[in-house]
Amino acid sequence: MGMVGGGRDAFIGAVHRNAAALDGQIEFVAGALSSTPDKAVASARDLGLAEDRCYENWESMLEGERARPEDDRIDFVSIVTPNHVHYPVARAFVDAGFHVVCDKPMTLTPDEADELATLVQARGTVFCVTYNYSGYPMVKQARHLVRSGAIGEVRKVIVEYNQGWLATELESTGQKQADWRTDPDRSGVGGAIGDIGSHAEQLVSNVTGLEIESLLADLTSFIDGRRLDDDANVLLRFAGGARGILTASQVCVGGRNDLRLRVWGTTGGLTWHQEEPNALLVTALDGPDITYHRGGPGLCEEAQAACRLPAGHPEAFIEAFANVYLAAARAIRAGADDGPGCDYPDVHHGRRGMHFISAVVRSSESGGTWTTP
Amino acid sequence: MGMVGGGRDAFIGAVHRNAAALDGQIEFVAGALSSTPDKAVASARDLGLAEDRCYENWESMLEGERARPEDDRIDFVSIVTPNHVHYPVARAFVDAGFHVVCDKPMTLTPDEADELATLVQARGTVFCVTYNYSGYPMVKQARHLVRSGAIGEVRKVIVEYNQGWLATELESTGQKQADWRTDPDRSGVGGAIGDIGSHAEQLVSNVTGLEIESLLADLTSFIDGRRLDDDANVLLRFAGGARGILTASQVCVGGRNDLRLRVWGTTGGLTWHQEEPNALLVTALDGPDITYHRGGPGLCEEAQAACRLPAGHPEAFIEAFANVYLAAARAIRAGADDGPGCDYPDVHHGRRGMHFISAVVRSSESGGTWTTP
Amino acid sequence: MGMVGGGRDAFIGAVHRNAAALDGQIEFVAGALSSTPDKAVASARDLGLAEDRCYENWESMLEGERARPEDDRIDFVSIVTPNHVHYPVARAFVDAGFHVVCDKPMTLTPDEADELATLVQARGTVFCVTYNYSGYPMVKQARHLVRSGAIGEVRKVIVEYNQGWLATELESTGQKQADWRTDPDRSGVGGAIGDIGSHAEQLVSNVTGLEIESLLADLTSFIDGRRLDDDANVLLRFAGGARGILTASQVCVGGRNDLRLRVWGTTGGLTWHQEEPNALLVTALDGPDITYHRGGPGLCEEAQAACRLPAGHPEAFIEAFANVYLAAARAIRAGADDGPGCDYPDVHHGRRGMHFISAVVRSSESGGTWTTP
Amino acid sequence: MGMVGGGRDAFIGAVHRNAAALDGQIEFVAGALSSTPDKAVASARDLGLAEDRCYENWESMLEGERARPEDDRIDFVSIVTPNHVHYPVARAFVDAGFHVVCDKPMTLTPDEADELATLVQARGTVFCVTYNYSGYPMVKQARHLVRSGAIGEVRKVIVEYNQGWLATELESTGQKQADWRTDPDRSGVGGAIGDIGSHAEQLVSNVTGLEIESLLADLTSFIDGRRLDDDANVLLRFAGGARGILTASQVCVGGRNDLRLRVWGTTGGLTWHQEEPNALLVTALDGPDITYHRGGPGLCEEAQAACRLPAGHPEAFIEAFANVYLAAARAIRAGADDGPGCDYPDVHHGRRGMHFISAVVRSSESGGTWTTP
Repeated sequence: MGMVGGGRDAFIGAVHRNAAALDGQIEFVAGALSSTPDKAVASARDLGLAEDRCYENWESMLEGERARPEDDRIDFVSIVTPNHVHYPVARAFVDAGFHVVCDKPMTLTPDEADELATLVQARGTVFCVTYNYSGYPMVKQARHLVRSGAIGEVRKVIVEYNQGWLATELESTGQKQADWRTDPDRSGVGGAIGDIGSHAEQLVSNVTGLEIESLLADLTSFIDGRRLDDDANVLLRFAGGARGILTASQVCVGGRNDLRLRVWGTTGGLTWHQEEPNALLVTALDGPDITYHRGGPGLCEEAQAACRLPAGHPEAFIEAFANVYLAAARAIRAGADDGPGCDYPDVHHGRRGMHFISAVVRSSESGGTWTTP
Repeated sequence: MGMVGGGRDAFIGAVHRNAAALDGQIEFVAGALSSTPDKAVASARDLGLAEDRCYENWESMLEGERARPEDDRIDFVSIVTPNHVHYPVARAFVDAGFHVVCDKPMTLTPDEADELATLVQARGTVFCVTYNYSGYPMVKQARHLVRSGAIGEVRKVIVEYNQGWLATELESTGQKQADWRTDPDRSGVGGAIGDIGSHAEQLVSNVTGLEIESLLADLTSFIDGRRLDDDANVLLRFAGGARGILTASQVCVGGRNDLRLRVWGTTGGLTWHQEEPNALLVTALDGPDITYHRGGPGLCEEAQAACRLPAGHPEAFIEAFANVYLAAARAIRAGADDGPGCDYPDVHHGRRGMHFISAVVRSSESGGTWTTP
Repeated sequence: MGMVGGGRDAFIGAVHRNAAALDGQIEFVAGALSSTPDKAVASARDLGLAEDRCYENWESMLEGERARPEDDRIDFVSIVTPNHVHYPVARAFVDAGFHVVCDKPMTLTPDEADELATLVQARGTVFCVTYNYSGYPMVKQARHLVRSGAIGEVRKVIVEYNQGWLATELESTGQKQADWRTDPDRSGVGGAIGDIGSHAEQLVSNVTGLEIESLLADLTSFIDGRRLDDDANVLLRFAGGARGILTASQVCVGGRNDLRLRVWGTTGGLTWHQEEPNALLVTALDGPDITYHRGGPGLCEEAQAACRLPAGHPEAFIEAFANVYLAAARAIRAGADDGPGCDYPDVHHGRRGMHFISAVVRSSESGGTWTTP
Repeated sequence: MGMVGGGRDAFIGAVHRNAAALDGQIEFVAGALSSTPDKAVASARDLGLAEDRCYENWESMLEGERARPEDDRIDFVSIVTPNHVHYPVARAFVDAGFHVVCDKPMTLTPDEADELATLVQARGTVFCVTYNYSGYPMVKQARHLVRSGAIGEVRKVIVEYNQGWLATELESTGQKQADWRTDPDRSGVGGAIGDIGSHAEQLVSNVTGLEIESLLADLTSFIDGRRLDDDANVLLRFAGGARGILTASQVCVGGRNDLRLRVWGTTGGLTWHQEEPNALLVTALDGPDITYHRGGPGLCEEAQAACRLPAGHPEAFIEAFANVYLAAARAIRAGADDGPGCDYPDVHHGRRGMHFISAVVRSSESGGTWTTP
């Protein structure tokens, strides 16, 4: 694996590396870890990469890796830069026939996303978008339950993603994460809705399989001068008649990484909470509440296969992230993306996410009209 | 105390009687407990009322009580009928100078509510609307914290009320509660939004003091043939710029009485959950989470005064309900409604609730437009 | 109902009165509410008792009530004094043919308890010991599950009762509750083990039906000069081979009223926590966790009958206490204590409790030897 | 790093490898992964080790690695075999000057533990015993709070470790984990008390720094024919006067990996639960409850340094395990074990654990006498 972005001062790059390393199946061998050439090389050296694979920028990495013998070059590149860099890097590597793991949101615009999807289709490469929460075993169990009809036909969805880290004007303090995430040139049109709302959208879509037919949004920026939303409240109407609420906020003081999903169908309901990810609560029309536990009895095959440890030995964020990497790696090895265990969020998830963000922003800017993503 | 409604087969009447009896300060002495005269009298006898105060209907009760010596008549009437009966009974008793405790929503229409408010003002009587959740000590603590600035200026509110008991067509089974609650002639224009959404609205208003400037609603009825909403999703904009979400549903399978409030301000946040009402979680910009407990340290005076038992000896629904009755009783005794401990939801709460329900229904019927309550 | 003890400054008397009043079936008409005659009468007046039933002491109350016509005297007396007064009052009233509700621990000594049990047997009166936690619906459900074999044969029990209110030398501050509870002349030989350990013992016995064959205790008093234990750790061996731990402490700083029971059998386990009393967790050998809720599906008849409200409308301490009063009242009315709903902790529970306390103290004093209660 | 044990069918070996791999700082290069030479080699090949470092047994691995140039041999060996193999392997590697990471319990007998401690002292090598729970950031925070006096002088400790996986006669089904853990020749004298009770003991010692002065145990084996305890209940007396309870069981049906610690001092208390390891509850004499979160505000330096992710992005079992490996690796690199971050459980923890297990078994076998470890 090679990596673009994720050098010194970055946050998510280290998580990607932990996740890729965890199972000892993916070797990190090349990197263009910063947009600043010196820092890129220094960061790569910090991490012990071979000198000739400490690249100054992604272009030289693409060139350098292509120049290596086929069995000695990276199998895939992991793109963990700010959003605006995703598209050019992804396009170039896909075009060159490399597989790609790319952070979300996938691009800056829906058009870029459409083009990328077309290109991936044409090249036949594996393209994984790191909607990492889909890697949690209990999310897989939730998806299994909903899709196998365990809660009947879905009627109502509430998905929330409450954070508080942008409750103050953090971007003016020099904090890098806050800086680019509040900058439309680097983040795109969505603030909270892009950064975390996109996770919430994917979680709903992934678990329920429902398509958002129409949405109506109210975006707010609570900090003076902040150019992107830091609070998003969205009403959802799904094809088939289900209704929903999606809320994503980064001004919920004290909110850590509070992603929660609740889905109710005609015969049952389920609740999952990312901060206590090892449990899944299921309710029924006429029976007591049931709680499934990661590693415990009653899990579907996909959920079981995603567990490393027995129940009660909690797995968490990095393990879920690693599951996404493992699934992509399996697909890369298999040369196909639909075998068993090749269950990763693909370019179509990424594309759907971009259209979702765009529709939310349009709806809100129009003063609140029902909008089709 | 006299009671109108709440006879055999009723649910909430018994709760009102438990609540009124709990502290041994309110005596239940007269009743017109059903709209069917025979049943009214039989129900009253069941409960051990004196024969001459087992009334056939509320009109005869009003007449009968007025005819008694002033020191031997009821001090107030408690109205626990289906919604459409609230207004005529309340108007008549207020007009006759009786104090009134009335279930929510207060009337069938905003106009009735306006008239009642005017009449109460004119007569100077105590008029308590049983928004019973306001009686919980930790709701009083939440109100205290918000109003004293402990979480700064409010930015975001999420209030939910998730129930599941109407997830099937219960009204066609002869279940009385479901029958009238899904009938617009007896419930008014709101289904879930009226029955439980109104509690959610009052909880927000009571705790935050914020005024809803505008709202946008999406109401649904998921059961074929059901004439009122059983699911309501509402975006809120408050005067001053805060944003919010209110959701109320009676088709959330497995949902019991899941009323939750979360409020975030510029410097903190709080969470309260009715099903675990003895705790209140408070978060901060830069400190660990704090949990206050009913009966425990750190409570404001009003919250302390609303506790009967030390911490860890849980108090619950009936005790909170009783606190509302106690506050109204104190006001009745004091002949004024603003003394210490006279903290009950009054006719203005009831009136505001009716305008809220009306605005929600209008917004939804218009296809989703921002509407002023 | 008449009451002995529970006047001004008392804590538990008010709870008894709330509990008795809640359902409107028990009328509080007579009282000897303090050991100080003036205070006794004043306290009774405070509570609105008729002047001739504001007694100066329990002896005059016994005499006064016996002198009244049979249909106008109290049906039973509720004894809510410090422990040392339980026995003389109880014995006198039972002997006079009155039914009794008595707080726990039932007497000062096992001998007194034995005598009382014999006398009750002889007089045929109802004698209820207010092990109030047995009134919780979910405790009834736990008992039902264990006794009906839902968790197989019991192997292991952990019961805890952690409080913190005596973590400082509260008795030297004039706090009345602390004062008598740390005084062996008024409390008996047990401190924490008597005051709350006895509840824990009864909870285990009530739920499992197991008999303690032998126990081994380590009692400590952490406060200089305190004459009774404030911390008790006890190993249990039950007839049939089950093992257990009982711990009761009043120096667990921050502990509120943290009574917890866990029972594991050959095929399942259960957990109940008094501070969140509306839920009961059940585990299984090879299935997911199940949570029953008060008022919800899956409850046994006794548990259902003990609920006033639907699920999600929490009931708590006073309601459970009231269930004990209701059961005793039903038995008094029925003239027998074994009819349906007459499910109250009787004199044998009280007697067993006294032998338990005595055995714990003996075991600890002997330096830790297995002792038979 | 080389590994002894942990081949095909083993459980904990894979966890050790995940933990070592996570941070990309420890390379797994050599292994003698099974006691069966063929399986040892095949398992090593499975994991991609170089052919010449797929050893048939630990003796050949020791020889093979010693024969390599100093800068190309393993820095340390990780011993993840059943217990009876720990001592000979550890002794040989330490004697040869290799650093060691060894699973717990450290040896079969206290004598072996004493000898090992002496040898480690003599050789000056790093010897880490994988009491992995000590790697959790919130355990470090708990230790910090207790040791810095935040809860005053410790009075009472309750530590529990409840599992259910041996509630049936699993050892007769061919399950390898159950097989050796119930066999005294491979496990030592302790069953549950050795396997998990030793973790509980270390957790208490690590957090509080208290020394067990005396203990009294009741061990049981609930399965016919099982030769080791599957349930252990132990009373503890600590030097300085604190009291405690330790319970460890593997027959608590439905119990997953339920390790919990509660400590109360003169001014506060704390609660930590391994299954929800990201939170730490702290109580106070006269303030509300406080909950610290991993990655959140209020953490001590050691706890902060042990976090990879921000709050709300949960870390769990493997991350904590990896923290132990990292600390040992730091000490190995530093050539000393007391630098910053070199916070690993050392040979003295392992030795203390062996004496604890031995004392528990002796106390129980004597019928319950206070015994000094």
